Parts: sequence; structure tokens; C-alpha cells
Amino acid sequence: MKNLLATRANPDVSSALAGLFPHDTSDQAISFAPGSPNQQLFPVAAMQAAFNTAIDQAGAGLFQYQTAQGNATLRQQLADRIHKWGQVTTTADNVVLTVGGQQGIDLVAKALLNPGDELAVETPAYIGALAAFDLYQPRYHAVPLTTDGIDLNALEDTLRRHPKIKLLYTVPDYHNPTGITMSTTKRQQLVALANQYDFVILEDTPYRDLGYEHAPLPAIKSFDTQGRVIFLSSFSKILMPGLRTGWLVADGDLLAAILKVRLASDLEANNVVHAAIAAYLTANDLDEHIQNLTQHYRRQRDAMVHALAAYFPEEVQYTRPAGGFFDWVTLPADLDAGELLTHTIQPQAHITYVPATNFYPNRDVHNALRLSYSGLAPQAIDAGMRRLGDELKAAIHATHPVV
Amino acid sequence: MKNLLATRANPDVSSALAGLFPHDTSDQAISFAPGSPNQQLFPVAAMQAAFNTAIDQAGAGLFQYQTAQGNATLRQQLADRIHKWGQVTTTADNVVLTVGGQQGIDLVAKALLNPGDELAVETPAYIGALAAFDLYQPRYHAVPLTTDGIDLNALEDTLRRHPKIKLLYTVPDYHNPTGITMSTTKRQQLVALANQYDFVILEDTPYRDLGYEHAPLPAIKSFDTQGRVIFLSSFSKILMPGLRTGWLVADGDLLAAILKVRLASDLEANNVVHAAIAAYLTANDLDEHIQNLTQHYRRQRDAMVHALAAYFPEEVQYTRPAGGFFDWVTLPADLDAGELLTHTIQPQAHITYVPATNFYPNRDVHNALRLSYSGLAPQAIDAGMRRLGDELKAAIHATHPVV
Repeated sequence: MKNLLATRANPDVSSALAGLFPHDTSDQAISFAPGSPNQQLFPVAAMQAAFNTAIDQAGAGLFQYQTAQGNATLRQQLADRIHKWGQVTTTADNVVLTVGGQQGIDLVAKALLNPGDELAVETPAYIGALAAFDLYQPRYHAVPLTTDGIDLNALEDTLRRHPKIKLLYTVPDYHNPTGITMSTTKRQQLVALANQYDFVILEDTPYRDLGYEHAPLPAIKSFDTQGRVIFLSSFSKILMPGLRTGWLVADGDLLAAILKVRLASDLEANNVVHAAIAAYLTANDLDEHIQNLTQHYRRQRDAMVHALAAYFPEEVQYTRPAGGFFDWVTLPADLDAGELLTHTIQPQAHITYVPATNFYPNRDVHNALRLSYSGLAPQAIDAGMRRLGDELKAAIHATHPVV
Repeated sequence: MKNLLATRANPDVSSALAGLFPHDTSDQAISFAPGSPNQQLFPVAAMQAAFNTAIDQAGAGLFQYQTAQGNATLRQQLADRIHKWGQVTTTADNVVLTVGGQQGIDLVAKALLNPGDELAVETPAYIGALAAFDLYQPRYHAVPLTTDGIDLNALEDTLRRHPKIKLLYTVPDYHNPTGITMSTTKRQQLVALANQYDFVILEDTPYRDLGYEHAPLPAIKSFDTQGRVIFLSSFSKILMPGLRTGWLVADGDLLAAILKVRLASDLEANNVVHAAIAAYLTANDLDEHIQNLTQHYRRQRDAMVHALAAYFPEEVQYTRPAGGFFDWVTLPADLDAGELLTHTIQPQAHITYVPATNFYPNRDVHNALRLSYSGLAPQAIDAGMRRLGDELKAAIHATHPVV
């Protein structure tokens, strides 16, 4: 039946998302691979109460067909929230509820990208975004990151050479996979570039509330005067991923196009879940919950940063995340993080991570890896990083023998 | 920003799904337009209990990331159900949980259709399917229906002329919008044609359990020996649409391709809702609930069939549905159901329906309309049909004056 598949579904090219997290059954196994939130921090009882409140209040109407845009109460709460924390002035009518942030990326790609259209992405990039974009068969332009976000000089150089670039994808806050945050100045300059070169910015912000050192910066969308920035976020990291609830904020033609493709993709959002989230937000202080999350995750981040300094060889470079779940590690150029993982580190040390190739559209960078600390207690982080550090030292000394 | 949109999202072409149901605020208004189920029949209390059971049993793990395929318990229950009622032998691993049947259609289109690929659809066809397919820019081939389902002679003729047709979309049970059911013989013959001409069948069955005269027929998928039939169904009509839960059954390469595009589209299904549905199915007898539904809907169907005979002019033809929600009415060739609705029937009689053009990929049939009886009590059906019948008589007599 392979002959009947669309080019985008080519079975000989595996999804960037498939098989990322090899299963290690050893009782010694410690995995820095998955970017899942820590489920011990999930507000299960409060959410159960919220489901009951939503059903009690709305009854059968809750379960009837609604609209493509989704629950109006929740959309208003989200419009208020992004005003409070991101300085974005918008309305509930500009908010679209999505199936996680992932569907938001898919809908934006579906609304904007013809096969062969030009797309700029920060690299390394969120794997799920590349998987979503891949199916719309764009021409990728990779733009590197610096310590304060996307390299605007490199971006402008790319735009000069490829003025037909339609869309830029960025994760400005505690970036996945590097943990880097874009400075406020760069956010403003990026919007100016988008105005000048006529492209759309997709601002993906699943981690923006999870800062360990300062309040969230103004959203890129807050500098948008032409309706060309699409703000995207999600409850997956600040509440629970099983709610499968993200949201986006868009304007004008882009909003209309997104709603059109949404209606055809799955008709509408899950009103039962969204009414429950709205009830949760009414009965609970989400900011207080997030403060609790950041206290826990900050300790995990601290354990990671400490372990990187204590156990990793000096030939290795790494980022210093001020929030989020991730650290990006760069090995000497002649080491392949994927080969090391498969042949040495997982079988010998029972440590896993995600190798760099997965985060590049052309899968052409091999000497780096993503470490996630979100799912591990500080002691596990310390123990795992010590073993990983030893493995990396051994690998480096094998290729760079001390003479 | 229109210049940056993808061709598929062309804002000058409105979605087939948009603006279908004009809002009439008159207290005389009776709408035969929406195909929504009757929410008085929703098992709200049992589903609320099921949400609580699911959360009590699984706790935080319920809300963590799961898999692209969805809740394993529910998939097993569905594999058992389609074996019992559709004679399809399959496994839980072949079941994919989707966001309503609509996402199932979108995923199949995404997995199979390159722009310009050839697609056969029964006509008239479900509007949402056309909206989903439209975004993948296929070349449509319309195949008419007869009283016992798709016209196989017309289909074979089309296949001979267009041997590259990849996919056929059909709603074999109580078809939307006509109410027609495909005979068992035709189901078998259709699979033989698919084997001969090498195409995939998407069998969409949201109404298959809602028969008022006989048990469900064997699924088309039950005759599939080559893994080329994708069976699709939904809880929207037999439980509640707000659950946003459909499922599909597929094999081999098609299953792999669907899972690949699903992962990139929204990562995974809503495990909280799906665990609740699984708990509902464990604690309740779905067949008993469906029997209750069919008793109610049968009375509505009877009221519709009675009213069609009693109030409609003899120049008008209509189907006689043995299940489902819909009746298809064909007017004399020179009448335009859309024009009549907008200019006469809605303003004067406060009756609405969905005009035929919406159900044809080329929007080239004007003298027909869909009536839905699912949301209306028998008395409302009778009152509305009397007014609609009077309007149609007047329209026919105006164009065909009795001399």
C-alpha cells in the first residue's frame, strides 16, 4: 500500500518524533531524554473538582457541539492572562484553543505553507515543530542561536538572500532544547525585521511561565502592530499535558485562515476539558500553582547546573538555563552524541538523552545533545550526571589521548 | 497578510463548513439544518461518574503524556465492539483514537493525498469530509448514489477512465446527507473493485449504530483482505460530540502512515477523556443506551416520513431513511434550494435546512436539500414540515403555474 501514500507520509523517512526515547529496563537507568513535566506536581484533586463543577454547571450542553474557536470563558481568561504577563493587548475573539501547542504549530503550518515555501527556524529547534513542518514540505533556513536568542545578523543575512521567507518559528523563552531566552531588545528588533521583510513570526511559548530568576519578559507579540505575530502557548507544562490544551492568539487574515483550517481538521476543541480548565482557573490561583512549580523545577535546574560544573570534562560546553526544562551540551566536533549514546553510554552507563541530529531540519549536527531535568529528583540528576560525565570524559580521552 | 497564506487557506474560498446554519431569532423558527444529536439523550450523570472513576483510578498518571495511538483499554473495547457489530476481526493495536471522526478524515487525507491526487467521493457527500479533503487539493471524482448505496457501475466507469484514483470516501450506513444504506452485496463488491483498481476505501460510519429497522450490516472493512479499507467511526452520535472522540481501524502501511501524521499533527489523543469513556463502557451497557437512542430517533424519523408524505408536493422526491438523522429532498430541476431558503423560506416561514450545493465538491447541484430531524421533537417536525411543504408548493406553483 506504500504506493498510495502521500509524499509527506513517506514511510522510509521516520517521524522526527518517533523512537526518541529508547526504553532501558535496567534498574540503574536514568533518562535525561523526555521533556515531560513532573507528574508529582499535577493538581489532580483540584482538576477533578473542576471537571465536576463544569459538568454540574452546564449539564448536557457541555457535551454538545460548540464552535471551532473553543470555550469563550477560557478564551477570555487567557486573553487576560497574556495581557497581565506578556503585555499583549488582545480579546477573547483572537484566542483559538488547540489540541496542545502541537496542533497550534500544525494549524499555522497548514494555513501558511505550500510545498516548497520558505521557512526560517532557530536551530537547534523543537523536534515536534520540525515534525509538524516537515509534513508541509517547506524549504528550511536554519538560523543559529546566541546566548540571548536568535542571531539577528544571521537572520537578516538569510532574509536578504531569501526574501520569500514566509514564516519564522521561534521559542523565545527557556528554549527547547537549549534553555536560551531571547532578550527584550531582540524581541522588538525581530518584529521590526518581520515588518521590513514581510514574514510571519510564530512565537511558541510553552515554558514562558517557568522562569527561575525573573518574571516573564514581554511577548514578541506585544511589539506586533501589524498582526503578523502568532502567539502560541500551552497548559502542558504549567498544568498537565494530558489536558491536550494549547491556545494561540492571532489577528485578521491569519486568524481567519487558522480558524478555517482548524474547522476542517477536527471541527472544534474539547469543550468538556476546556470548561473544566476554566473552572479550575476560577477556583484556583494559577500563578500560585506556577510559583510552586518553579520552586521545584529550580532545585532540579540547580542540581543540573551544579553537576555540569562538577562532573563534565572541560572540553564540553553547555548552556545555563534561567528557566524551563532543558540544557544543551556541545561536545568536541569529532564526537557523535548519537553514536556514543547507542554504543556506549546507554548500554554501559544506562543513561539516555536526545542527540543533536533530531533538532536540526537537515539532521547535520552530531556533536551535541539535550539534557532534560524536569522529570528527575536532584539526587537522580546528580547520580546520572556523574555517570554521564565519566562516560564523556572517557570518550574524549579515547579520541584525544593525553600524551 | 493574505499574500502569506497557503493556497489551501485561500480566504476568498469560504470553508464548506462555515456559515452553514443561519441563525433565526424568531420564536417561530424551526431548523432542519444542524445534524447535532439530541442533547436530552446525553448520559451526563453516567459520564460524570466515569470521569471521576478514571481520575480516582489513575491519578496523576492519567494527565501525563501518553502515546499517539491513545488509551489502550478503550482501543481494546472498540476492537471488540467492531468485531461484535461489524464482523471486523482486528486488534487494539490497529485502533487509533482521533479528535472526532473529523480528525480521522483529515489524517487519512494527510497520509494519502498529494496536491492533484485523484479522489472519488459519493455525492452528495458529508460537508465536513469535503472541507477536510479540500485542504489537500485533490482532483475530485463524484460518484452518484442509488437507493442501495454507491452506484458501482458509475464508479467502475470512473475508475476505468481515471485509474490513478487513490482513495474512495463513503458513508455506507444511513448516509449523511441522504440517509441511504449500502447493501451488504455492494460492500463486498466495492472491496473487490478496490483490490482490482488498487485504491483505498475510507469507510466513515458515525451513524452505523443508529438503525431503526435492522441490526448494523457487516462493515466494508469486514471484507478487506489486503489492508486497504480504513474503518472510521465516532462517539459523537452514540454518546456525545463534546467528547471529541472518534476512532479508526487500519492495517500495515496505512496504519503506520496515519500514526506518523497524527504524531506531527497534535502528538496524541486526550487520555483523560478516553479513560473516562473506557470507564463509562465498563460501568454501562452502551448497546442498551443505543437502543434508547434509536427508540427516540425512530419516532422523529417516523414523524419526518409522515410529514414528507402529508405536506410535500408530489413534484418533490425524497429518501426514506432506515436510520440516522437525515432525509434528502430533490426539487424540480429549475428550483434552487439555496435561493429559496435565503429569499423566501427563512424570512417568510422561519424554516432552515442545508441546500444541496454544500454537499457537492464542485457546488454544481442546486435543486436539492438536506433535512435533519435529530434535534427536533415530533410535534416540531410536523409543524415545521407543514410550513416547509406549503412554501415548496408555492414555489413550484409559481414556476409551474397550473393552467
